[in-house]
Amino acid sequence: MYDLVLLRHGESEWNKLNLFTGWYDCDLTDAGRNEAAAAADMLDGAGILPDVLHTSLQKRAIRTANIALSGIERLWIPVRRSWRLNERHYGDLTGANKAEMTAKYGEEKVHIWRRSYDVPPPAITAGNEFNPNVDVRYADLAPELVPSSECLKDVVERMLPYWFDSIVPDLGAGRKVLVVAHGNSLRALVKHLDGISDEDIPSLNIPTGVPLHYELDSSFRPAQDKSIDDRYLMDAEAVRAKAEAVAKQATGV
Amino acid sequence: MYDLVLLRHGESEWNKLNLFTGWYDCDLTDAGRNEAAAAADMLDGAGILPDVLHTSLQKRAIRTANIALSGIERLWIPVRRSWRLNERHYGDLTGANKAEMTAKYGEEKVHIWRRSYDVPPPAITAGNEFNPNVDVRYADLAPELVPSSECLKDVVERMLPYWFDSIVPDLGAGRKVLVVAHGNSLRALVKHLDGISDEDIPSLNIPTGVPLHYELDSSFRPAQDKSIDDRYLMDAEAVRAKAEAVAKQATGV
Repeated sequence: MYDLVLLRHGESEWNKLNLFTGWYDCDLTDAGRNEAAAAADMLDGAGILPDVLHTSLQKRAIRTANIALSGIERLWIPVRRSWRLNERHYGDLTGANKAEMTAKYGEEKVHIWRRSYDVPPPAITAGNEFNPNVDVRYADLAPELVPSSECLKDVVERMLPYWFDSIVPDLGAGRKVLVVAHGNSLRALVKHLDGISDEDIPSLNIPTGVPLHYELDSSFRPAQDKSIDDRYLMDAEAVRAKAEAVAKQATGV
Repeated sequence: MYDLVLLRHGESEWNKLNLFTGWYDCDLTDAGRNEAAAAADMLDGAGILPDVLHTSLQKRAIRTANIALSGIERLWIPVRRSWRLNERHYGDLTGANKAEMTAKYGEEKVHIWRRSYDVPPPAITAGNEFNPNVDVRYADLAPELVPSSECLKDVVERMLPYWFDSIVPDLGAGRKVLVVAHGNSLRALVKHLDGISDEDIPSLNIPTGVPLHYELDSSFRPAQDKSIDDRYLMDAEAVRAKAEAVAKQATGV
């Protein structure tokens, strides 16, 4: 039996401002830091002590991981990072306000951009002042790997090679693996693990700062057929309240 | 020409309490965190942006690195860690007060333990309440690798394989390397790089929180014959004042 823990970063500055973030590298808010510290307590309470950390290249995930690992006295574990765990690239919506986009394009269009499986938002433009693609951290990537916009299907496709090539070998070596990443890179992974259909995945919301614990069998698939609610290291009712808050963001409620 | 930056962690809780620390995993003080942030400014001022980080397994080094990298927006760079970059193991002096040991054993004996090249302190005992060897982070090391006490010569011997096998290949790949480690693991590395004799190394003190920049040639040796004072990314006078403060610790001054 292999242990895998998924953790979505705590509230970021742009979550709070209700902006589409994607690959833009904003930091955590104080509330987000507190969520990361609370995640440490949940790991500690469940007695799950990761042996290796995987993160994206984005600071909201890295900082969440550092705070959580500090809280369980595991800052020393090996760390691996990859752009393949990054948040979905939001294309030219990067930096736009979710409520303003809803007012401008209508709720349906924004909902499609946010939640459809295979419709990416408009491609990033050179004129977008928040264009993350010029960041030095992506300078060594082959240009054709750097997305101009992504739907969740794109994220699944670019994330899975990292799952198979980097995370699975750590699990296979008997290491408890902590993955600290983003709403959409983690939805992509959960979709794969739980075999969620393209039709059902849009309604799945993963709350920030709540560790999600999988026990995997020798095929690196869930050993138990559990609902996702039963995998969180937090009371199901509290998880639902957090997830609903995320779902409501587009309307600015 | 290869770029290497060495950084000793900022003031730790046990530096402040004047205790022998070694492998004990104490944290930074607020002053130590500020030193780490100041180190980021020095790197930024010198325009040296590391591509990869190497640290020990000890949190005072890891946290110094995290704060420094955060300050230069490089939290995303790859990280490698090894016990081979740990502080010197202080044997049964671990947890003892430097001034009390001076009063008890005399200045000469304590000076020998602190600064002689090849005389290790007494071995750690199971009764030492601060025995770091039982820490889970060393559980996967072959028992014969875990020291019971170390002199600087021992540190040179266990650190050099990591230099040659892990740091040099990163340099050779053209990466600017940041090593965040400890007074003695860095003295060991400087001894190797600058070819300092066994007789001269005891008088070398490396201040906390001041990046030390080497440009190395194709043999991974210093490209210029410079004094160490000219390698710090800080005014030589200020460096000397910091180093003297470290040298004075044993007497509690």
